[in-house]
Amino acid sequence: MRPFVFVNLAMSADGKLSTRERRQVKISGREDFARVDRIKAGSDAVMVGIGTVLADNPSLTVKSSELKAMRVQTGALENPVRIVIDSRARTPPDADILHKGPGRRIIAVSRQAPEERISRLAPFAEVRVFGDEKVDMSALLAFLHTEGVRRVMVEGGGTLIWSLFAEDLVDEFITFVGNMVIGGASAPTPADGSGFALEREFTRLKLAGMRQCDDGVLLTWTVEREG
Amino acid sequence: MRPFVFVNLAMSADGKLSTRERRQVKISGREDFARVDRIKAGSDAVMVGIGTVLADNPSLTVKSSELKAMRVQTGALENPVRIVIDSRARTPPDADILHKGPGRRIIAVSRQAPEERISRLAPFAEVRVFGDEKVDMSALLAFLHTEGVRRVMVEGGGTLIWSLFAEDLVDEFITFVGNMVIGGASAPTPADGSGFALEREFTRLKLAGMRQCDDGVLLTWTVEREG
Repeated sequence: MRPFVFVNLAMSADGKLSTRERRQVKISGREDFARVDRIKAGSDAVMVGIGTVLADNPSLTVKSSELKAMRVQTGALENPVRIVIDSRARTPPDADILHKGPGRRIIAVSRQAPEERISRLAPFAEVRVFGDEKVDMSALLAFLHTEGVRRVMVEGGGTLIWSLFAEDLVDEFITFVGNMVIGGASAPTPADGSGFALEREFTRLKLAGMRQCDDGVLLTWTVEREG
Repeated sequence: MRPFVFVNLAMSADGKLSTRERRQVKISGREDFARVDRIKAGSDAVMVGIGTVLADNPSLTVKSSELKAMRVQTGALENPVRIVIDSRARTPPDADILHKGPGRRIIAVSRQAPEERISRLAPFAEVRVFGDEKVDMSALLAFLHTEGVRRVMVEGGGTLIWSLFAEDLVDEFITFVGNMVIGGASAPTPADGSGFALEREFTRLKLAGMRQCDDGVLLTWTVEREG
Protein backbone atom coordinates (compact mmCIF):
# COMPACT_ATOMS: atom_id res chain seq x y z
CA MET A 1 0.00 0.00 0.00
CA ARG A 2 1.22 3.47 -0.84
CA PRO A 3 -0.29 6.96 -1.00
CA PHE A 4 -1.56 8.61 -4.20
CA VAL A 5 1.47 10.42 -5.65
CA PHE A 6 1.17 13.42 -7.91
CA VAL A 7 3.84 15.62 -9.42
CA ASN A 8 3.24 19.32 -9.87
CA LEU A 9 5.71 21.53 -11.68
CA ALA A 10 6.12 24.55 -13.90
CA MET A 11 8.24 24.31 -17.02
CA SER A 12 9.06 26.66 -19.87
CA ALA A 13 7.54 26.10 -23.32
CA ASP A 14 10.74 24.22 -24.18
CA GLY A 15 10.53 21.95 -21.15
CA LYS A 16 12.95 23.49 -18.63
CA LEU A 17 12.45 23.91 -14.88
CA SER A 18 15.12 26.60 -14.63
CA THR A 19 18.36 27.75 -16.25
CA ARG A 20 21.51 25.66 -16.64
CA GLU A 21 22.78 27.25 -13.42
CA ARG A 22 19.54 26.20 -11.66
CA ARG A 23 18.69 29.83 -11.16
CA GLN A 24 15.15 29.99 -9.81
CA VAL A 25 12.94 31.71 -12.36
CA LYS A 26 9.36 32.84 -12.55
CA ILE A 27 7.55 30.55 -14.97
CA SER A 28 3.91 30.90 -13.92
CA GLY A 29 1.94 33.71 -12.25
CA ARG A 30 -0.56 34.56 -9.52
CA GLU A 31 -3.34 32.27 -10.63
CA ASP A 32 -0.97 29.33 -10.71
CA PHE A 33 0.60 30.20 -7.33
CA ALA A 34 -2.90 30.16 -5.80
CA ARG A 35 -3.66 26.83 -7.48
CA VAL A 36 -0.42 25.29 -6.21
CA ASP A 37 -1.17 26.54 -2.69
CA ARG A 38 -4.63 24.93 -2.87
CA ILE A 39 -3.42 21.54 -4.00
CA LYS A 40 -0.62 21.66 -1.42
CA ALA A 41 -3.19 22.41 1.29
CA GLY A 42 -5.16 19.42 0.01
CA SER A 43 -2.19 17.07 0.40
CA ASP A 44 -1.00 15.11 3.41
CA ALA A 45 2.65 15.46 2.47
CA VAL A 46 4.79 17.48 0.08
CA MET A 47 8.10 16.13 -1.17
CA VAL A 48 11.20 17.57 -2.87
CA GLY A 49 14.66 16.32 -3.74
CA ILE A 50 17.83 17.63 -2.12
CA GLY A 51 18.82 19.40 -5.35
CA THR A 52 15.75 21.60 -5.07
CA VAL A 53 16.48 22.36 -1.40
CA LEU A 54 20.05 23.38 -2.26
CA ALA A 55 19.06 25.44 -5.32
CA ASP A 56 15.84 27.11 -4.16
CA ASN A 57 15.68 26.77 -0.36
CA PRO A 58 11.88 26.37 -0.38
CA SER A 59 9.86 26.37 2.85
CA LEU A 60 7.06 24.27 1.30
CA THR A 61 4.53 25.83 3.66
CA VAL A 62 0.92 26.57 2.79
CA LYS A 63 0.79 30.31 2.09
CA SER A 64 -2.89 31.27 2.34
CA SER A 65 -4.14 31.86 5.90
CA GLU A 66 -7.64 30.70 4.82
CA LEU A 67 -6.23 27.40 3.61
CA LYS A 68 -4.18 26.98 6.77
CA ALA A 69 -7.26 27.66 8.90
CA MET A 70 -9.27 25.17 6.86
CA ARG A 71 -6.66 22.49 7.43
CA VAL A 72 -6.62 23.13 11.16
CA GLN A 73 -10.44 23.04 11.31
CA THR A 74 -10.42 19.55 9.83
CA GLY A 75 -7.97 18.34 12.44
CA ALA A 76 -4.84 18.50 10.26
CA LEU A 77 -1.68 20.43 10.99
CA GLU A 78 -1.26 23.80 9.30
CA ASN A 79 1.23 22.39 6.81
CA PRO A 80 1.46 18.98 5.14
CA VAL A 81 4.31 16.73 6.26
CA ARG A 82 7.37 18.11 4.51
CA ILE A 83 9.76 15.52 3.12
CA VAL A 84 13.23 15.89 1.62
CA ILE A 85 14.71 13.01 -0.39
CA ASP A 86 18.33 13.34 0.59
CA SER A 87 20.41 10.13 0.36
CA ARG A 88 23.53 11.65 1.90
CA ALA A 89 21.87 14.02 4.38
CA ARG A 90 23.13 17.16 2.66
CA THR A 91 20.19 19.33 3.77
CA PRO A 92 21.70 22.45 5.38
CA PRO A 93 20.71 22.62 9.07
CA ASP A 94 19.55 26.20 8.47
CA ALA A 95 17.37 25.35 5.44
CA ASP A 96 14.00 27.14 5.45
CA ILE A 97 12.13 23.87 5.23
CA LEU A 98 13.45 22.97 8.70
CA HIS A 99 12.52 26.25 10.34
CA LYS A 100 9.67 28.08 8.61
CA GLY A 101 6.15 27.33 9.81
CA PRO A 102 4.92 24.61 12.14
CA GLY A 103 4.59 20.96 11.16
CA ARG A 104 6.27 17.63 10.78
CA ARG A 105 9.45 17.27 8.70
CA ILE A 106 11.06 14.08 7.45
CA ILE A 107 14.51 13.89 5.90
CA ALA A 108 14.65 10.57 4.05
CA VAL A 109 18.27 9.39 3.80
CA SER A 110 20.04 6.20 2.75
CA ARG A 111 22.67 4.18 4.63
CA GLN A 112 25.24 6.36 2.82
CA ALA A 113 24.38 9.33 5.00
CA PRO A 114 27.19 10.23 7.46
CA GLU A 115 26.17 9.98 11.12
CA GLU A 116 27.48 13.43 11.92
CA ARG A 117 25.26 15.06 9.32
CA ILE A 118 22.27 13.10 10.54
CA SER A 119 22.85 14.23 14.10
CA ARG A 120 23.05 17.86 12.99
CA LEU A 121 19.64 17.55 11.30
CA ALA A 122 17.98 15.50 14.04
CA PRO A 123 16.96 18.49 16.21
CA PHE A 124 14.87 19.90 13.35
CA ALA A 125 13.41 16.87 11.56
CA GLU A 126 12.86 13.15 11.74
CA VAL A 127 15.76 11.65 9.85
CA ARG A 128 14.75 8.22 8.54
CA VAL A 129 16.81 5.68 6.64
CA PHE A 130 15.39 3.90 3.57
CA GLY A 131 17.74 1.98 1.28
CA ASP A 132 21.46 1.37 0.93
CA GLU A 133 22.77 3.78 -1.71
CA LYS A 134 19.77 5.81 -2.72
CA VAL A 135 16.55 6.43 -0.84
CA ASP A 136 14.24 3.45 -1.44
CA MET A 137 11.15 5.34 -2.59
CA SER A 138 8.79 2.38 -2.38
CA ALA A 139 9.80 1.74 1.21
CA LEU A 140 9.43 5.43 2.07
CA LEU A 141 5.96 5.59 0.50
CA ALA A 142 4.90 2.42 2.31
CA PHE A 143 6.08 3.96 5.58
CA LEU A 144 4.18 7.18 4.86
CA HIS A 145 1.05 5.14 4.23
CA THR A 146 1.33 3.52 7.66
CA GLU A 147 1.59 7.04 9.07
CA GLY A 148 -1.76 7.96 7.55
CA VAL A 149 -0.39 9.86 4.54
CA ARG A 150 -2.78 9.24 1.63
CA ARG A 151 -1.88 12.03 -0.81
CA VAL A 152 1.68 13.11 -1.63
CA MET A 153 2.55 16.15 -3.74
CA VAL A 154 5.96 16.06 -5.41
CA GLU A 155 7.35 19.50 -6.25
CA GLY A 156 10.61 18.45 -7.92
CA GLY A 157 13.28 18.47 -8.99
CA GLY A 158 13.86 16.53 -12.15
CA THR A 159 16.06 13.87 -10.56
CA LEU A 160 13.51 12.90 -7.90
CA ILE A 161 10.68 12.98 -10.43
CA TRP A 162 12.65 10.78 -12.79
CA SER A 163 13.28 8.19 -10.07
CA LEU A 164 9.56 8.11 -9.26
CA PHE A 165 8.63 7.59 -12.91
CA ALA A 166 11.38 4.98 -13.31
CA GLU A 167 9.88 3.00 -10.44
CA ASP A 168 6.29 3.53 -11.62
CA LEU A 169 5.29 5.41 -8.46
CA VAL A 170 3.51 8.40 -10.04
CA ASP A 171 -0.27 8.58 -10.42
CA GLU A 172 -0.76 12.09 -11.79
CA PHE A 173 1.50 14.56 -13.58
CA ILE A 174 0.49 18.22 -13.58
CA THR A 175 2.57 20.59 -15.68
CA PHE A 176 2.17 24.31 -16.03
CA VAL A 177 3.73 25.27 -19.38
CA GLY A 178 4.96 28.84 -19.28
CA ASN A 179 5.26 31.43 -22.04
CA MET A 180 9.03 31.55 -22.39
CA VAL A 181 11.97 29.69 -23.89
CA ILE A 182 14.88 29.03 -21.52
CA GLY A 183 17.00 26.60 -23.53
CA GLY A 184 20.10 24.71 -22.43
CA ALA A 185 21.12 21.09 -22.97
CA SER A 186 22.07 20.86 -19.30
CA ALA A 187 19.19 22.87 -17.81
CA PRO A 188 16.98 20.89 -15.39
CA THR A 189 13.91 19.27 -16.98
CA PRO A 190 10.77 17.68 -15.52
CA ALA A 191 12.39 14.22 -15.63
CA ASP A 192 16.18 14.01 -15.64
CA GLY A 193 18.31 11.05 -14.49
CA SER A 194 19.12 8.40 -17.05
CA GLY A 195 15.76 8.43 -18.81
CA PHE A 196 14.07 5.51 -20.52
CA ALA A 197 16.15 4.00 -23.32
CA LEU A 198 13.37 2.13 -25.10
CA GLU A 199 9.97 3.26 -26.32
CA ARG A 200 8.19 0.37 -24.61
CA GLU A 201 9.53 1.51 -21.23
CA PHE A 202 8.04 5.02 -21.48
CA THR A 203 5.49 6.00 -18.85
CA ARG A 204 2.19 6.30 -20.74
CA LEU A 205 -0.16 9.12 -19.83
CA LYS A 206 -3.74 10.09 -20.49
CA LEU A 207 -4.71 13.72 -20.90
CA ALA A 208 -7.13 14.56 -18.09
CA GLY A 209 -7.22 18.33 -18.33
CA MET A 210 -6.02 21.28 -20.36
CA ARG A 211 -6.71 24.93 -19.69
CA GLN A 212 -5.17 28.35 -19.97
CA CYS A 213 -3.74 29.64 -16.69
CA ASP A 214 -1.92 32.96 -16.31
CA ASP A 215 -0.03 33.39 -19.60
CA GLY A 216 0.53 29.67 -20.01
CA VAL A 217 -1.23 26.34 -20.13
CA LEU A 218 -2.02 23.89 -17.36
CA LEU A 219 -1.91 20.25 -18.44
CA THR A 220 -3.06 17.41 -16.21
CA TRP A 221 -2.02 13.88 -17.14
CA THR A 222 -2.90 10.65 -15.39
CA VAL A 223 -0.55 7.68 -15.55
CA GLU A 224 -1.99 4.79 -17.54
CA ARG A 225 -1.48 1.33 -16.13
CA GLU A 226 -2.44 -1.90 -17.76
CA GLY A 227 -5.63 -3.43 -16.38
CA MET B 1 14.79 41.20 -44.61
CA ARG B 2 14.26 37.59 -43.67
CA PRO B 3 11.48 35.00 -44.10
CA PHE B 4 8.90 34.18 -41.41
CA VAL B 5 10.47 31.40 -39.34
CA PHE B 6 8.43 28.89 -37.39
CA VAL B 7 9.52 25.88 -35.39
CA ASN B 8 7.39 22.75 -35.30
CA LEU B 9 8.23 19.83 -33.06
CA ALA B 10 6.81 17.01 -30.98
CA MET B 11 7.99 16.56 -27.42
CA SER B 12 7.03 14.25 -24.58
CA ALA B 13 5.05 15.56 -21.60
CA ASP B 14 8.41 16.04 -19.85
CA GLY B 15 9.91 18.03 -22.72
CA LYS B 16 12.06 15.52 -24.62
CA LEU B 17 12.39 15.13 -28.39
CA SER B 18 13.72 11.57 -28.12
CA THR B 19 15.70 9.31 -25.79
CA ARG B 20 19.21 9.99 -24.49
CA GLU B 21 20.52 7.85 -27.37
CA ARG B 22 18.52 10.02 -29.81
CA ARG B 23 16.44 7.01 -30.73
CA GLN B 24 13.62 8.22 -32.95
CA VAL B 25 10.33 7.67 -31.14
CA LYS B 26 6.66 8.09 -31.92
CA ILE B 27 5.38 11.03 -29.91
CA SER B 28 2.31 12.11 -31.86
CA GLY B 29 -0.15 10.27 -34.11
CA ARG B 30 -2.00 10.33 -37.43
CA GLU B 31 -3.79 13.61 -36.95
CA ASP B 32 -0.55 15.34 -36.11
CA PHE B 33 1.33 13.74 -39.02
CA ALA B 34 -1.34 15.11 -41.38
CA ARG B 35 -1.09 18.53 -39.76
CA VAL B 36 2.69 18.58 -40.09
CA ASP B 37 2.41 17.55 -43.74
CA ARG B 38 -0.02 20.42 -44.36
CA ILE B 39 2.12 23.09 -42.77
CA LYS B 40 5.18 21.73 -44.55
CA ALA B 41 3.30 21.94 -47.86
CA GLY B 42 2.45 25.51 -46.96
CA SER B 43 6.10 26.45 -46.48
CA ASP B 44 8.70 27.61 -48.97
CA ALA B 45 11.55 25.88 -47.16
CA VAL B 46 12.01 23.29 -44.43
CA MET B 47 15.14 23.26 -42.30
CA VAL B 48 16.88 20.79 -39.96
CA GLY B 49 20.21 20.59 -38.19
CA ILE B 50 22.89 18.04 -39.02
CA GLY B 51 22.23 16.18 -35.74
CA THR B 52 18.72 15.39 -36.91
CA VAL B 53 19.99 14.22 -40.32
CA LEU B 54 22.49 11.89 -38.65
CA ALA B 55 20.03 10.56 -36.05
CA ASP B 56 16.82 10.24 -38.07
CA ASN B 57 17.77 10.44 -41.76
CA PRO B 58 14.57 12.33 -42.68
CA SER B 59 13.61 12.98 -46.30
CA LEU B 60 11.59 16.12 -45.40
CA THR B 61 9.33 15.56 -48.41
CA VAL B 62 5.63 16.38 -48.50
CA LYS B 63 3.82 13.06 -48.05
CA SER B 64 0.27 13.64 -49.29
CA SER B 65 -0.18 13.42 -53.07
CA GLU B 66 -3.06 15.94 -52.84
CA LEU B 67 -0.81 18.45 -51.12
CA LYS B 68 1.97 17.85 -53.65
CA ALA B 69 -0.48 18.36 -56.52
CA MET B 70 -1.76 21.52 -54.90
CA ARG B 71 1.76 22.91 -54.66
CA VAL B 72 2.48 22.12 -58.29
CA GLN B 73 -0.81 23.72 -59.41
CA THR B 74 0.22 26.96 -57.74
CA GLY B 75 3.52 26.97 -59.60
CA ALA B 76 5.68 25.68 -56.75
CA LEU B 77 7.87 22.61 -56.75
CA GLU B 78 6.44 19.44 -55.19
CA ASN B 79 8.59 19.88 -52.08
CA PRO B 80 9.73 22.99 -50.22
CA VAL B 81 13.44 23.85 -50.46
CA ARG B 82 15.15 21.45 -48.07
CA ILE B 83 17.94 22.93 -46.00
CA VAL B 84 20.47 21.27 -43.70
CA ILE B 85 22.43 23.41 -41.23
CA ASP B 86 25.74 21.62 -41.29
CA SER B 87 28.80 23.73 -40.38
CA ARG B 88 31.34 21.01 -41.16
CA ALA B 89 29.54 19.36 -44.11
CA ARG B 90 28.95 16.08 -42.30
CA THR B 91 25.77 15.22 -44.21
CA PRO B 92 26.25 11.68 -45.56
CA PRO B 93 26.24 11.73 -49.38
CA ASP B 94 23.62 8.95 -49.31
CA ALA B 95 21.29 10.76 -46.87
CA ASP B 96 17.60 10.48 -47.82
CA ILE B 97 17.21 14.23 -47.89
CA LEU B 98 19.61 14.34 -50.87
CA HIS B 99 17.88 11.61 -52.87
CA LYS B 100 14.21 11.19 -51.98
CA GLY B 101 11.69 13.22 -53.99
CA PRO B 102 12.29 16.08 -56.41
CA GLY B 103 13.23 19.59 -55.35
CA ARG B 104 15.94 21.99 -54.37
CA ARG B 105 18.36 21.16 -51.54
CA ILE B 106 20.75 23.49 -49.76
CA ILE B 107 23.48 22.37 -47.40
CA ALA B 108 24.48 25.44 -45.40
CA VAL B 109 28.07 25.09 -44.19
CA SER B 110 30.65 27.34 -42.55
CA ARG B 111 34.24 28.02 -43.59
CA GLN B 112 35.20 25.09 -41.33
CA ALA B 113 33.77 22.61 -43.80
CA PRO B 114 36.51 20.54 -45.52
CA GLU B 115 36.64 20.98 -49.30
CA GLU B 116 36.61 17.25 -49.96
CA ARG B 117 33.33 16.79 -48.07
CA ILE B 118 31.79 19.72 -49.90
CA SER B 119 32.75 18.26 -53.24
CA ARG B 120 31.19 14.93 -52.33
CA LEU B 121 27.90 16.66 -51.53
CA ALA B 122 27.93 19.05 -54.48
CA PRO B 123 26.39 16.62 -57.01
CA PHE B 124 23.25 16.33 -54.86
CA ALA B 125 22.74 19.76 -53.31
CA GLU B 126 23.77 23.39 -53.41
CA VAL B 127 26.47 23.70 -50.78
CA ARG B 128 26.61 27.30 -49.57
CA VAL B 129 29.00 28.91 -47.10
CA PHE B 130 27.67 31.27 -44.40
CA GLY B 131 29.95 32.21 -41.50
CA ASP B 132 33.37 31.28 -40.20
CA GLU B 133 32.90 28.71 -37.43
CA LYS B 134 29.19 28.10 -37.31
CA VAL B 135 26.60 28.72 -39.97
CA ASP B 136 25.59 32.41 -39.81
CA MET B 137 21.82 31.98 -39.58
CA SER B 138 20.98 35.63 -40.22
CA ALA B 139 23.03 35.60 -43.41
CA LEU B 140 21.44 32.35 -44.54
CA LEU B 141 17.93 33.68 -43.89
CA ALA B 142 18.72 36.90 -45.73
CA PHE B 143 19.96 34.85 -48.68
CA LEU B 144 16.81 32.71 -48.64
CA HIS B 145 14.72 35.86 -48.70
CA THR B 146 16.48 37.05 -51.86
CA GLU B 147 15.65 33.66 -53.36
CA GLY B 148 11.94 34.22 -52.78
CA VAL B 149 11.62 32.12 -49.62
CA ARG B 150 9.04 33.78 -47.38
CA ARG B 151 8.09 31.02 -44.95
CA VAL B 152 10.59 28.63 -43.32
CA MET B 153 9.60 25.62 -41.24
CA VAL B 154 12.21 24.41 -38.75
CA GLU B 155 11.86 20.75 -37.80
CA GLY B 156 14.73 20.47 -35.28
CA GLY B 157 16.77 19.43 -33.59
CA GLY B 158 17.29 21.14 -30.28
CA THR B 159 20.69 22.63 -31.12
CA LEU B 160 19.51 24.39 -34.28
CA ILE B 161 16.34 25.58 -32.55
CA TRP B 162 18.38 26.94 -29.65
CA SER B 163 20.65 28.89 -31.98
CA LEU B 164 17.62 30.42 -33.71
CA PHE B 165 16.08 31.48 -30.37
CA ALA B 166 19.46 32.77 -29.16
CA GLU B 167 19.65 35.03 -32.21
CA ASP B 168 16.00 36.06 -32.00
CA LEU B 169 15.15 34.57 -35.39
CA VAL B 170 11.99 32.64 -34.49
CA ASP B 171 8.48 34.01 -35.08
CA GLU B 172 6.30 31.09 -34.07
CA PHE B 173 6.86 28.01 -31.91
CA ILE B 174 4.49 25.07 -32.36
CA THR B 175 4.82 22.18 -29.95
CA PHE B 176 2.90 18.96 -29.90
CA VAL B 177 3.04 17.64 -26.32
CA GLY B 178 2.69 13.86 -26.30
CA ASN B 179 1.21 11.54 -23.70
CA MET B 180 4.39 9.93 -22.41
CA VAL B 181 7.35 10.53 -20.12
CA ILE B 182 10.78 9.83 -21.65
CA GLY B 183 13.14 11.29 -19.04
CA GLY B 184 16.89 11.73 -19.22
CA ALA B 185 19.10 14.65 -18.24
CA SER B 186 20.96 14.28 -21.55
CA ALA B 187 18.00 13.53 -23.81
CA PRO B 188 17.45 16.09 -26.59
CA THR B 189 15.00 18.87 -25.75
CA PRO B 190 13.26 21.53 -27.86
CA ALA B 191 16.04 24.04 -27.17
CA ASP B 192 19.47 22.71 -26.20
CA GLY B 193 22.80 24.51 -26.60
CA SER B 194 23.95 26.74 -23.77
CA GLY B 195 20.54 28.15 -22.93
CA PHE B 196 19.79 31.59 -21.55
CA ALA B 197 21.52 32.28 -18.23
CA LEU B 198 19.37 35.22 -17.11
CA GLU B 199 15.64 35.62 -16.87
CA ARG B 200 15.66 38.88 -18.79
CA GLU B 201 17.24 37.12 -21.78
CA PHE B 202 14.44 34.53 -22.11
CA THR B 203 12.48 34.52 -25.34
CA ARG B 204 8.98 35.66 -24.37
CA LEU B 205 6.00 33.98 -26.00
CA LYS B 206 2.28 34.58 -26.31
CA LEU B 207 -0.14 31.66 -26.36
CA ALA B 208 -1.87 31.72 -29.73
CA GLY B 209 -3.55 28.32 -29.71
CA MET B 210 -4.18 25.25 -27.62
CA ARG B 211 -6.10 22.15 -28.64
CA GLN B 212 -6.19 18.43 -28.16
CA CYS B 213 -4.61 16.51 -31.04
CA ASP B 214 -4.26 12.72 -31.13
CA ASP B 215 -3.61 11.74 -27.48
CA GLY B 216 -1.71 14.93 -26.76
CA VAL B 217 -1.95 18.69 -26.91
CA LEU B 218 -0.97 21.10 -29.64
CA LEU B 219 0.34 24.45 -28.38
CA THR B 220 1.02 27.38 -30.67
CA TRP B 221 3.13 30.23 -29.32
CA THR B 222 4.09 33.46 -31.06
CA VAL B 223 7.30 35.25 -30.15
CA GLU B 224 6.73 38.57 -28.42
CA ARG B 225 8.92 41.43 -29.45
CA GLU B 226 9.02 44.86 -27.92
CA GLY B 227 7.64 47.82 -29.81
